[in-house]
Amino acid sequence: MTQPLWSKSGSAKQSELLDKITNFMSGEDIILDRQLFIYDVQASQAHAEGLARINVIQSSELKQITNVLQELSEQFISGELELDKRFEDCHSAIEWFLTEKLGETGKKIHTGRSRNDQVSVATRLYCRDALSQLKHQCLVVADTCLTLAKQHEFDVLPGYTHLQRAVPSSWGMWFAAFAEAFCDNASAANDTYHLVNSNPLGTAAGYGVNLELDREYTTQALGFNRKQINPMYVQNSRGKVELQVLGSFKNALLDIRRMAWDLSLFSTSEYGFIQVGDDFSTGSSIMPNKHNPDAVELMRAAYSTLVGAYNELESLLSLPSGYQRDLQNTKGALLKGVSASIQCLELVPDLLKSLTINVDKCEQAVDASMFATDKAVELVIEDDMPFRDAYRHIKNNYQELESRQAKDSIKNRVSPGACGNLMLHEISERLESLV
Amino acid sequence: MTQPLWSKSGSAKQSELLDKITNFMSGEDIILDRQLFIYDVQASQAHAEGLARINVIQSSELKQITNVLQELSEQFISGELELDKRFEDCHSAIEWFLTEKLGETGKKIHTGRSRNDQVSVATRLYCRDALSQLKHQCLVVADTCLTLAKQHEFDVLPGYTHLQRAVPSSWGMWFAAFAEAFCDNASAANDTYHLVNSNPLGTAAGYGVNLELDREYTTQALGFNRKQINPMYVQNSRGKVELQVLGSFKNALLDIRRMAWDLSLFSTSEYGFIQVGDDFSTGSSIMPNKHNPDAVELMRAAYSTLVGAYNELESLLSLPSGYQRDLQNTKGALLKGVSASIQCLELVPDLLKSLTINVDKCEQAVDASMFATDKAVELVIEDDMPFRDAYRHIKNNYQELESRQAKDSIKNRVSPGACGNLMLHEISERLESLV
Amino acid sequence: MTQPLWSKSGSAKQSELLDKITNFMSGEDIILDRQLFIYDVQASQAHAEGLARINVIQSSELKQITNVLQELSEQFISGELELDKRFEDCHSAIEWFLTEKLGETGKKIHTGRSRNDQVSVATRLYCRDALSQLKHQCLVVADTCLTLAKQHEFDVLPGYTHLQRAVPSSWGMWFAAFAEAFCDNASAANDTYHLVNSNPLGTAAGYGVNLELDREYTTQALGFNRKQINPMYVQNSRGKVELQVLGSFKNALLDIRRMAWDLSLFSTSEYGFIQVGDDFSTGSSIMPNKHNPDAVELMRAAYSTLVGAYNELESLLSLPSGYQRDLQNTKGALLKGVSASIQCLELVPDLLKSLTINVDKCEQAVDASMFATDKAVELVIEDDMPFRDAYRHIKNNYQELESRQAKDSIKNRVSPGACGNLMLHEISERLESLV
Amino acid sequence: MTQPLWSKSGSAKQSELLDKITNFMSGEDIILDRQLFIYDVQASQAHAEGLARINVIQSSELKQITNVLQELSEQFISGELELDKRFEDCHSAIEWFLTEKLGETGKKIHTGRSRNDQVSVATRLYCRDALSQLKHQCLVVADTCLTLAKQHEFDVLPGYTHLQRAVPSSWGMWFAAFAEAFCDNASAANDTYHLVNSNPLGTAAGYGVNLELDREYTTQALGFNRKQINPMYVQNSRGKVELQVLGSFKNALLDIRRMAWDLSLFSTSEYGFIQVGDDFSTGSSIMPNKHNPDAVELMRAAYSTLVGAYNELESLLSLPSGYQRDLQNTKGALLKGVSASIQCLELVPDLLKSLTINVDKCEQAVDASMFATDKAVELVIEDDMPFRDAYRHIKNNYQELESRQAKDSIKNRVSPGACGNLMLHEISERLESLV
Repeated sequence: MTQPLWSKSGSAKQSELLDKITNFMSGEDIILDRQLFIYDVQASQAHAEGLARINVIQSSELKQITNVLQELSEQFISGELELDKRFEDCHSAIEWFLTEKLGETGKKIHTGRSRNDQVSVATRLYCRDALSQLKHQCLVVADTCLTLAKQHEFDVLPGYTHLQRAVPSSWGMWFAAFAEAFCDNASAANDTYHLVNSNPLGTAAGYGVNLELDREYTTQALGFNRKQINPMYVQNSRGKVELQVLGSFKNALLDIRRMAWDLSLFSTSEYGFIQVGDDFSTGSSIMPNKHNPDAVELMRAAYSTLVGAYNELESLLSLPSGYQRDLQNTKGALLKGVSASIQCLELVPDLLKSLTINVDKCEQAVDASMFATDKAVELVIEDDMPFRDAYRHIKNNYQELESRQAKDSIKNRVSPGACGNLMLHEISERLESLV
Repeated sequence: MTQPLWSKSGSAKQSELLDKITNFMSGEDIILDRQLFIYDVQASQAHAEGLARINVIQSSELKQITNVLQELSEQFISGELELDKRFEDCHSAIEWFLTEKLGETGKKIHTGRSRNDQVSVATRLYCRDALSQLKHQCLVVADTCLTLAKQHEFDVLPGYTHLQRAVPSSWGMWFAAFAEAFCDNASAANDTYHLVNSNPLGTAAGYGVNLELDREYTTQALGFNRKQINPMYVQNSRGKVELQVLGSFKNALLDIRRMAWDLSLFSTSEYGFIQVGDDFSTGSSIMPNKHNPDAVELMRAAYSTLVGAYNELESLLSLPSGYQRDLQNTKGALLKGVSASIQCLELVPDLLKSLTINVDKCEQAVDASMFATDKAVELVIEDDMPFRDAYRHIKNNYQELESRQAKDSIKNRVSPGACGNLMLHEISERLESLV
Repeated sequence: MTQPLWSKSGSAKQSELLDKITNFMSGEDIILDRQLFIYDVQASQAHAEGLARINVIQSSELKQITNVLQELSEQFISGELELDKRFEDCHSAIEWFLTEKLGETGKKIHTGRSRNDQVSVATRLYCRDALSQLKHQCLVVADTCLTLAKQHEFDVLPGYTHLQRAVPSSWGMWFAAFAEAFCDNASAANDTYHLVNSNPLGTAAGYGVNLELDREYTTQALGFNRKQINPMYVQNSRGKVELQVLGSFKNALLDIRRMAWDLSLFSTSEYGFIQVGDDFSTGSSIMPNKHNPDAVELMRAAYSTLVGAYNELESLLSLPSGYQRDLQNTKGALLKGVSASIQCLELVPDLLKSLTINVDKCEQAVDASMFATDKAVELVIEDDMPFRDAYRHIKNNYQELESRQAKDSIKNRVSPGACGNLMLHEISERLESLV
Repeated sequence: MTQPLWSKSGSAKQSELLDKITNFMSGEDIILDRQLFIYDVQASQAHAEGLARINVIQSSELKQITNVLQELSEQFISGELELDKRFEDCHSAIEWFLTEKLGETGKKIHTGRSRNDQVSVATRLYCRDALSQLKHQCLVVADTCLTLAKQHEFDVLPGYTHLQRAVPSSWGMWFAAFAEAFCDNASAANDTYHLVNSNPLGTAAGYGVNLELDREYTTQALGFNRKQINPMYVQNSRGKVELQVLGSFKNALLDIRRMAWDLSLFSTSEYGFIQVGDDFSTGSSIMPNKHNPDAVELMRAAYSTLVGAYNELESLLSLPSGYQRDLQNTKGALLKGVSASIQCLELVPDLLKSLTINVDKCEQAVDASMFATDKAVELVIEDDMPFRDAYRHIKNNYQELESRQAKDSIKNRVSPGACGNLMLHEISERLESLV
């Protein structure tokens, strides 16, 4: 039963070489397919319904198929059914199960369908879910940041450029920056969702078939917003869609990388601005004194997993039209990139809530020099000095700069979006509009 | 006059080391800035108008500034004004010109602005134009492909998987595949346009200023659809926006890569399906007999320029929040990626129109074996045989397969999108909706 | 027993959040470590011996440790000992086992050592083995190609440039090209082996310790050719060494990619030059007629796995000196890149031996035009015509070109390395010198 | 005269489309070729000598050719001869000049040679020089670091892991880490030099010619250590060699990235350990108070240029054997990666010498907790406590830790390579052996 349906004779399978070849050709496929099985079952159901609508199968056969697919789905979720190396992949497994249970009727499921569109549609449904999750997680992060921005609206934080102290800033601005960023990231995830939300089912091996498949029906049944019309384009979008999905995840993980860098620096003894919660830290095997913000570092690192997955995928895509087996290798990269990213994103809100901010240390770090720019602008407004002259005046009269209360000073920074006018309400509205 | 406005004393500049340092630090910046100058002038104009609205400059001063900026723009376009190594970059050049011509008034232009938001807004305007061009070129390619798909609707072309002959297909399907792909690409360009179409102007060095800048006004004046609210987020999106833009270009160039691969194979002696127009071909320095489709190969190669630019940019982006000088290097990568891609895309329609298709050669390549799948489906429909049995029957009775008229046969492939039902009208409607 | 030695209290471990954090922080580490365990045991043994030499442990204690490590090693190889999620990683597992079995003595193993140098030395030993295997596999491929080059020395094959027919060539040249390439690849693997063959053990957490560890001894005991002297450099070379190793693998896999491309084209119906052995091919789920060279396509794809691993690693490496937890993620990338590449390389010789060459088809593909260059050179030699004039003459008098016997013609191509003078002996000598 | 030698008729060149095509096909080639011209002249000279040795040209003709090539070389160096858009590339320019000056004799230079091996040999000579320069610069950096390590041998610097204070370290160790790293980098450059130092000249378009070219002679004349024997391998190594070269540069630039990260952090107000020399710093356009270590940040960024170039190149290399025009695009990437890297490396020694170290600030940063590990080892040695118990004891009795004189304490860290035993002499010997 474990033979692929178009395989070579069992007797030839015995040598070590053939094992190596099989391993090379199928590898971890069936393990990876555990993440796609449910989607394939869904799409198989829609395909069967479509076949019934054009009378390729009887309504009684459809009912049988529906029942078995339902059962497979339940058994898979409960763990009763396990996808293991008995099967080449989840796609052939489904036909095998149907045939095992329904005989002749099971052999009909693959009418007008190829493994090529079967893989494409299951992957597309997976991508759609991945993007939904991405959007959701981005909105959760944005919401958490917005709450924390309100809470720390006027808590002082030095503003840096070139890692040098520049002008006074606030934790409110810091959190609001990521709140807005994650609104954009949710919006981008949403765009990609709509971009890839087209139905590849019914295009067979990339050239369609001599059957009037009801693709309108399957498109609607699977919740796609349009058909991917051209069968060749379906195959040519293998890898392209996956890159778009991973590209969408990159937005979020790139911002996490910046955020993690900040937290990594802010939690050093030298900065001393924050402490990361104990749950997100570890010790050292040799140094009894260490308390390391490991989770923060791994969040900074998480972008790299996406880079690896994205580049692996991209490097496959120098091929002529039509399916080539190289494209098989898009699967592992996609699944790894998505799951590692979601694992990381899920922890961000709790990490942020776990932070202890040392307000005194932050205020102390705002030294007199950081008021130079404000002072220059004041010379412009109050003394009517052209900005460039004011700038030069300050630069040449450094000794005159007086320290100020950072806590008050940030409230005077009132340009829209700045510490004194964070416009959290506008960000909040944007967030609401994306939910 | 060529000193940056905050530079060291001229006398220190003489040694060879200092030249090397200057070269390393500014490099080709001023040359690259020729592509950004016009956008910086536009944004400077909006900034000046905004300053006038909050009474930081007088309306008479605004008029003077407007006139000079207008003049600079005209001189730049005519070639009279050249950006060269006298200037550190286009951003300081503008202030220098204004000060040179208007004295005190010129020194006011930089009030409430930093080179950081100045660079960001000019780059954003550039990106917006780049994405508009991308969308436009994608639609031109899609339109060309659609026209050619109609023209060659029933011209036979073998359909391949694994580069092996699979089932009969058509040039209609080939062109339609790219027509649909480039609709998607235009749509993605459009999404990215809206995603990045937010106004960074008025955020200064990443922390705003102590001035109530009228950002609503500049947002509207520059045609942005929203403010990028948070100043820190503006700086944190340096590189992120650029990656989104290049990522959007990748969609189109990735499809070009597949298209070029096909054309490269189809124009070999072995396939013999097409000849690429003479204008797109060259000879060899040693072999008198050669007629090489160089343009096709360079189109296939063009994706690599994007990969290089994208990865260069991405590799810069492991940084804490706020501006870091590393981000300077995002500029060259962005400009190179965009301009090389547009140069390539512009030639695609003419290349496609230059193709000569050898219809006979294409038809001859459709051998009897390629009707196996159609025959299996016929056994399903006509003999009520379950598909898997029909498949096995054909596989075991190869000798029975008869050759067919490919030209007729493709018309029977009627699943939506397939050769007999290309649904060009639907693709055409999609295209229209994107214009 | 499953607690890491410096862990938090067990009671805190119960919530779902903590599970997620643990998963995020350790992930598949212990699974990956199965590939490193034996190396860590080796290095632990050398470390224990070193401690005995400076009298930190007694010789009786060393004997006990030696016995337990020996036992662990045997149990691991036999499968009796399994590394699973009870352990954080293989590094803490070893100390745990020693302590479990030897009590006080076991607690001494970590004296003067940190997990940082422990990971580094185990990884280095793994890299050394990986490079040895790479070199070996390259030499096997080179040897196979050399044998096949001799066997097919004068079997005609068209020579292509731009995929266009250019001049006559031979299968001898094709195989010899890869024979020479894989000699270079073996040589490069050898270079990298020597480059990375330095001992990181004895550098603790990256700053050494207040103990006169006998690093000369461990260097020699583990077969390193030198100490990696500076402890900070040891940590700073995390990732750098891994990139060097993967970079070395790239040479081989890049050549495999070209080779696979050739085989993919040559096995199309259009070329028809070869047939790939049945063991390396598969069928289609929908098309009964297909016989696809899947293994060849997956070999072409294999380079992408290296690209992914390499870029993932590289993207981690924008960090200050010293260990950062981000570097943890170098492990998975390294192991995946190496094992996937070796899996591919091992199959290449059998694939090449499985090829059936269709000599007639190859000869027929050498048409008259392909003798143009030879003819031009003959005009130079025989008629004393300057080459450029000869070139133009042929170009303008195409009709005069006569077809020739390709089989004879290639023997006249006698420039060193060309078909008539493949210099297989020199390649063979090079290969011998590398064994 | 500006027509390529095998070009289309001049009249067809007039339309805008043809200009666009020409631009797309040749692009910046001739500009880039300014960096290759001298190498092509050298190789042309060797080729001419080789032709004379097999009597394809007379010794009198060789003399003429020698004189013209000599003249071209001098005129190019003096700036009298400029490569501009009159020429397609430097390779056809040389033949054009020879023909212009010598008539018939000039037309003979291309006998037995193709632009393919001409490009390969010029590029190979360039790569060899690039690698020599890389090695040289690495040794200069190593030497500088070694001198500074001696000078600051016992200047205290905190040792960090996870950016958290870990154990006491020294500037001596910091500089020595990079001294050793750059010895390795020089050694790697040397390996790559030898790996790529093989002669591609005499392999024509990738299949050799029907002439007994004297490749032994040209190999020796151009200083190669061996022939690249197989002509097809020569073409297949296009891109592969370039990747090896850029890969070799990566070693150095990756270490620079770490170094720059350290310097960037150490020069913040929060660390306050160093000040970067004024020549390597700049100010801000809006903030009068800023003094930014721009050069350090651009050095950190420099690795990205290599990443871009490397990935661009790599993305081209999914091709069948033989020359394809795609490979043209390897040139720009190689030249950019190499020149940007050398520009950066050249400045490193001066930057390091420009540093002012704030010794007091560094010492103050070594707090009591950082002696925990030393204390644990002392408990092992003095109280015979097993290490893991000592570790736990310290961890549970933090309050007992006493501060120590960091300056003395680092001298007790005597494991080979650690602060008290930097082994600078061994590093110095290694450096000497590489000169």
